[in-house]
Amino acid sequence: MPPGSPIHIGEIKTAKPSISVLDFGPGVLIETELPDTTDLASYVRQNSTLWGNIYGLQDPVALSAIGSTFHLHPLVLEDILNNNQRQKVDAYDDYLYVVLHRYEISTNPLNLVQDQISLVIGTDYLLSFQERQSRTFEPVRQRLRADRANLRSATTAMLAYSLFDSVVDNYFVVIESLDDYAEHLEAEILGHPGPAVLENIHQFKRCVSQLRRNLYPLRELLGSLHREHAHFFGPEIQLYLRDVYDHTVHIIESLDDLRELATGLLDVHLTTVSHRVNLEVRALTVVATVFMPATLIAGIFGMNFHHMPWLEDSSGFFFATGLMLVIATIMLALFWRRR
Amino acid sequence: MPPGSPIHIGEIKTAKPSISVLDFGPGVLIETELPDTTDLASYVRQNSTLWGNIYGLQDPVALSAIGSTFHLHPLVLEDILNNNQRQKVDAYDDYLYVVLHRYEISTNPLNLVQDQISLVIGTDYLLSFQERQSRTFEPVRQRLRADRANLRSATTAMLAYSLFDSVVDNYFVVIESLDDYAEHLEAEILGHPGPAVLENIHQFKRCVSQLRRNLYPLRELLGSLHREHAHFFGPEIQLYLRDVYDHTVHIIESLDDLRELATGLLDVHLTTVSHRVNLEVRALTVVATVFMPATLIAGIFGMNFHHMPWLEDSSGFFFATGLMLVIATIMLALFWRRR
Amino acid sequence: MPPGSPIHIGEIKTAKPSISVLDFGPGVLIETELPDTTDLASYVRQNSTLWGNIYGLQDPVALSAIGSTFHLHPLVLEDILNNNQRQKVDAYDDYLYVVLHRYEISTNPLNLVQDQISLVIGTDYLLSFQERQSRTFEPVRQRLRADRANLRSATTAMLAYSLFDSVVDNYFVVIESLDDYAEHLEAEILGHPGPAVLENIHQFKRCVSQLRRNLYPLRELLGSLHREHAHFFGPEIQLYLRDVYDHTVHIIESLDDLRELATGLLDVHLTTVSHRVNLEVRALTVVATVFMPATLIAGIFGMNFHHMPWLEDSSGFFFATGLMLVIATIMLALFWRRR
Amino acid sequence: MPPGSPIHIGEIKTAKPSISVLDFGPGVLIETELPDTTDLASYVRQNSTLWGNIYGLQDPVALSAIGSTFHLHPLVLEDILNNNQRQKVDAYDDYLYVVLHRYEISTNPLNLVQDQISLVIGTDYLLSFQERQSRTFEPVRQRLRADRANLRSATTAMLAYSLFDSVVDNYFVVIESLDDYAEHLEAEILGHPGPAVLENIHQFKRCVSQLRRNLYPLRELLGSLHREHAHFFGPEIQLYLRDVYDHTVHIIESLDDLRELATGLLDVHLTTVSHRVNLEVRALTVVATVFMPATLIAGIFGMNFHHMPWLEDSSGFFFATGLMLVIATIMLALFWRRR
Amino acid sequence: MPPGSPIHIGEIKTAKPSISVLDFGPGVLIETELPDTTDLASYVRQNSTLWGNIYGLQDPVALSAIGSTFHLHPLVLEDILNNNQRQKVDAYDDYLYVVLHRYEISTNPLNLVQDQISLVIGTDYLLSFQERQSRTFEPVRQRLRADRANLRSATTAMLAYSLFDSVVDNYFVVIESLDDYAEHLEAEILGHPGPAVLENIHQFKRCVSQLRRNLYPLRELLGSLHREHAHFFGPEIQLYLRDVYDHTVHIIESLDDLRELATGLLDVHLTTVSHRVNLEVRALTVVATVFMPATLIAGIFGMNFHHMPWLEDSSGFFFATGLMLVIATIMLALFWRRR
Repeated sequence: MPPGSPIHIGEIKTAKPSISVLDFGPGVLIETELPDTTDLASYVRQNSTLWGNIYGLQDPVALSAIGSTFHLHPLVLEDILNNNQRQKVDAYDDYLYVVLHRYEISTNPLNLVQDQISLVIGTDYLLSFQERQSRTFEPVRQRLRADRANLRSATTAMLAYSLFDSVVDNYFVVIESLDDYAEHLEAEILGHPGPAVLENIHQFKRCVSQLRRNLYPLRELLGSLHREHAHFFGPEIQLYLRDVYDHTVHIIESLDDLRELATGLLDVHLTTVSHRVNLEVRALTVVATVFMPATLIAGIFGMNFHHMPWLEDSSGFFFATGLMLVIATIMLALFWRRR
Repeated sequence: MPPGSPIHIGEIKTAKPSISVLDFGPGVLIETELPDTTDLASYVRQNSTLWGNIYGLQDPVALSAIGSTFHLHPLVLEDILNNNQRQKVDAYDDYLYVVLHRYEISTNPLNLVQDQISLVIGTDYLLSFQERQSRTFEPVRQRLRADRANLRSATTAMLAYSLFDSVVDNYFVVIESLDDYAEHLEAEILGHPGPAVLENIHQFKRCVSQLRRNLYPLRELLGSLHREHAHFFGPEIQLYLRDVYDHTVHIIESLDDLRELATGLLDVHLTTVSHRVNLEVRALTVVATVFMPATLIAGIFGMNFHHMPWLEDSSGFFFATGLMLVIATIMLALFWRRR
Repeated sequence: MPPGSPIHIGEIKTAKPSISVLDFGPGVLIETELPDTTDLASYVRQNSTLWGNIYGLQDPVALSAIGSTFHLHPLVLEDILNNNQRQKVDAYDDYLYVVLHRYEISTNPLNLVQDQISLVIGTDYLLSFQERQSRTFEPVRQRLRADRANLRSATTAMLAYSLFDSVVDNYFVVIESLDDYAEHLEAEILGHPGPAVLENIHQFKRCVSQLRRNLYPLRELLGSLHREHAHFFGPEIQLYLRDVYDHTVHIIESLDDLRELATGLLDVHLTTVSHRVNLEVRALTVVATVFMPATLIAGIFGMNFHHMPWLEDSSGFFFATGLMLVIATIMLALFWRRR
Repeated sequence: MPPGSPIHIGEIKTAKPSISVLDFGPGVLIETELPDTTDLASYVRQNSTLWGNIYGLQDPVALSAIGSTFHLHPLVLEDILNNNQRQKVDAYDDYLYVVLHRYEISTNPLNLVQDQISLVIGTDYLLSFQERQSRTFEPVRQRLRADRANLRSATTAMLAYSLFDSVVDNYFVVIESLDDYAEHLEAEILGHPGPAVLENIHQFKRCVSQLRRNLYPLRELLGSLHREHAHFFGPEIQLYLRDVYDHTVHIIESLDDLRELATGLLDVHLTTVSHRVNLEVRALTVVATVFMPATLIAGIFGMNFHHMPWLEDSSGFFFATGLMLVIATIMLALFWRRR
Repeated sequence: MPPGSPIHIGEIKTAKPSISVLDFGPGVLIETELPDTTDLASYVRQNSTLWGNIYGLQDPVALSAIGSTFHLHPLVLEDILNNNQRQKVDAYDDYLYVVLHRYEISTNPLNLVQDQISLVIGTDYLLSFQERQSRTFEPVRQRLRADRANLRSATTAMLAYSLFDSVVDNYFVVIESLDDYAEHLEAEILGHPGPAVLENIHQFKRCVSQLRRNLYPLRELLGSLHREHAHFFGPEIQLYLRDVYDHTVHIIESLDDLRELATGLLDVHLTTVSHRVNLEVRALTVVATVFMPATLIAGIFGMNFHHMPWLEDSSGFFFATGLMLVIATIMLALFWRRR
């Protein structure tokens, strides 16, 4: 297929796509659930700004219809369907195309699921494409409904910022889960490590590395928006972008901490295992040094020489066993004192 | 030999070179297989654009003929024959010379074979030199035959982009194989590592490192094409180059992940081996602590003292063996409870 | 909640907020403790400069009152209440907003407590918000009271510098504690490591990493003040900022040293543990090689053959035990000489 | 001594210096071996360009004579004699002073010998100083004698480039030896590591690190020649410099590969050694678990109880030894099955 | 204390300060030892240039007197007394303030002592402050006395350069000691490591890290002098500064080598210790496998069965002991062959 051909790549996570449209302007808001994806292409806007949110779109034909309505470049359509993009921003003449990632984390066992969010930010419309239903953008929707922070009258850039903010807030939740998991791992390793601990550290490390690598392009993206795309993100929004940028940097630093922690935990685990080998060998040494002399004494008095001391003595047996006890006691005492 | 002398360096991978020529323009396409390499030098073009693809050229004389037809610099001829170049782009007055790499991977055992692809991109012709027959460029050829995406009317820069895209797509296949291999290795290490696992991790790490190092110049190359060679790669092709650039960055990041994974696997393997030493020593300790007291008791009652308790007792033997059993049972119970 | 909503995030470290106001100008200083946070909003200044220091503010309402008096941006109010910010400087039209961190360290067990300090630096006022009571800014207060270094007549930038300097001086105290702790750890590891040593190294490493990562933004912040915020920090203060910048770099370098030391200590500990395994195994080998031959000899003379040498010999027993002693002595001597 | 004092530093590698002069122009070449170093100072040139090559110069007086003939700066004379310089290029008013390194490698044991090459590149002369006789520059001399590649008519910059090219080609030979050595080491470690293998890895790592660190300044040097010294290295030579620059980058990348390989080999070796400990302990466990029960049984039937089962039984002995065999066989079978 | 208050920080290394003054111009040199630090403040210069060198100054009052004579900034006075500065250069209106470090190394045990050298470089005077008596600047003094290299007529920048050069030359001595120490450590580790070897590697690593971290600011400092302080360091001195800069880079590279070596040595030591565990376990295995069968045979013939083979046989005893010997010999032979 030539580049720019829209084919869906990635696993299908939603059976049926669902579309919600928020059509708003100063003081007005019309919220519609569209029955079919192609309806978005033919939807007639009634207010100054349109936010169309599509969950689970995998149908190239429906997407092409939307694409031709909003004049989207073939490469954009290809990227929306290919759920395997880096986080990035691409500037086209009339709109910006932004790819973001959202994560869901489960901790038993540790698992990270990545969803791609595609945003098309025009001057008077914003399209968001998500792989499946989520509540990530719900706070923004609430704010539009209540008309808080004057969002209905603001530019699509302000709306886009609100979406970025929701996505970054979602990362804080993930970080918190990882923090809890790390604490739990740490306690286990320093206490009584179970058989799966090594696998868990390994998995934890991978999750952190993956997230961390993924956040670098996000930081870059947020840092470049104001600088390189001033046409969309004007000076009035700069303070807000800097804020979400700062949050991203903070998250990356937390991940750096977690990553070092993971490496540290593996080292600690390795050292602990070596230490346990040491303790086992020590136990073995104690057993051997306590029983070997006694066994030797028993062997000596079991020899069949005709002339041997103590044998005829009526308390010889007790002398011998007493000697065994004394030697074992002295040895145990020596071990005790040395450690 | 002075620099610029064309000598073949590298192993000969193809017995006989084969040449295919695609001579095309808007609406027209003539496809020819040339019997001999020198025929390319004397080939008379009939349309606006010519794409000559040569497999397995090792003959300096034939290459010199082509070189003088297309006015190639001696250093270019030297580099085409020397299959040991970094991926790079060199600008000459009338053409760009690009070196790319193609990989073939086999996974049992893991092995990576590198082929060099040399492209000479003129304003109305493109020459591609490959070490041996492959299907890497087949999609582009198909697209030309079907005249999809208007490729026949496009510039050689667009054709070159299509070739870059094919090469980068080929990397995704390699990454997928490595991903599968890593998963298989991971399962083996955490499950029942065989004797070759260490060698396999080592080999995996080397492959990933080699690929990763090799992709840095490719990224640089793709990033510089539009910026530094605007004469060939104009603004209309910028979006496409950015796309293939993004893919390359994505591949590098996947390789970074794999590299960290490989390092992690080695650590996990080392810790696992240490852990197994621990288990072995523990087993030994259990054996010793269970049998040593019993052996001592047997030794004690084997002593030849004239006066010893229990000896004349008719159930003394069963007392003694019972005592052995009791002690062994208590010890095993203690071990059981502690771990 | 929309961004810019002031909510307190972080643990509450102080039951009741306390406010102190220093209202000063050349030759004058009025020091007041205000009973309530809202009083700061209504406080009428009597001299040219005002420094309001607030400990333990968690009440969004009171903060909003102060915010509207000093025209603070909603994002600033949000950041003051969210005790989880990176160290940073944000420029607003009329003031700079600076976030700093203060650390308290306790060493048994090693623990680092981070407090956030928020500074709002206007042209004729400075507000400092701290999470709880501390003596960090006491030296600056003393200097103002004694009018040393002409601080009463200086700009708020000079006052701000004095506060930065106090904060950075506080880091030196922390570094010193860490240095002492490291020395103590080092002595323990190379001497007689206790059971908690691994946990201690791990904790030490984490503290150093956390501090180090935290200081990078501080360095950046101090480096940028003169360059990017020349409106507040004029050339007359540049030398002083460079001085505190140099101190920060020095602290970071000390932390780099400590970090390498921590890594080194873990390696040393791991090697030490391996070495101890070696010594234990050696002890076991010595025991086994000394007692096994003796036990074998005892076993041999315990066999029930009718015809055996030495058995009837009156000094046979002493021959046998003597042989045991001789062999054991020779073996011990061999061990002694080899190591 | 003040800086700029010419003193020989480094070991004397050649007993007697030897000088060869190539005095050439378009179509002419006079080759002379000078009997004494001072003769170079008084040599009268007959053609447009002079290349004087000096091996093994350690005499400050002779060098001073040459220095005053060619107006060399005291710091240049000092650096020529001090065989301990980094690779670098220093620009003086009338000439460039370049320091290069040449390596000789021997592999049994692995050893790297570094020779310093000093080049003084004037507009119509070139002086090369080497620590001892070598064939590194022979290809260039051959090319001059045969007047290939028009070298006699070219500038001294072209001649200098040819010398750089020879030096860099020499690195490829070294890399190949290291590659072979690494392959041999790898095979040994994964097969039957001998006692010196650890020392060999260590030595290999050091060689690679040393070379790698040394090549960074060379890359920098070659990259800067055209950019910063355009007076000597004009545009016509740019393509050639880029070529030798590319080779240097290629060599550095090969060294990066080798370095990672070396680190990997050490890890593999450590893991292998741990694995061998494991196998040894397992062998010991098998021995102990097979013999201990049998010994216990023998001990039991060696007890002196008056009433014991089987003792009077005529086949009791065979029952007992049979029991020993059965238990040992069962245990061995269990071991066999578990691994 | 406010910033800029001169207090001595650091250990007092010299009981009584000593001052030497060199008062010189073209052709003249007056050398004076001043009895008291305050005399420098009141010293009347007789020639064009003054170099005052002060050892061991800890008295803030005396320093303040000098400070007011030479118009030094309070921050400079504070830094001179605080022997805990990074190497740095601070530009003031009339002079440069430079902090350098000098090291003394002792190798048994390895120990690094750091002294701070403060230079105040004015246009016609230079003050140097050192913590204690040393011969570091003696070569410069000699050169002034002999008026070599025209130093008496040169600027203070040339004098300053000579001092930098002395300091950097001193580093070469330290590096050489470290090189020797490393070689000695390496030989010990690969040969017969003593009990302190781990501590020695650790200490070596720390020394190298500390030095290395310390040299980065020195390199930066030397690199910036000509670029940023052209007022003092004019073009005529550029070549000299580049020379001492090159030396610093060379030293840093040597330290990088030593650092890698140190890390390598620790790895080698860890692997060696593991290998020794392996050898010990192997020895234990050999002992066990040789003696256990023999002990079992002795036990078997010690059983009290009434009917046993060989017992009545007159050479039964020799059969049994012979069997023991044969089995032990076979086992030892097997071990011998396998390794």
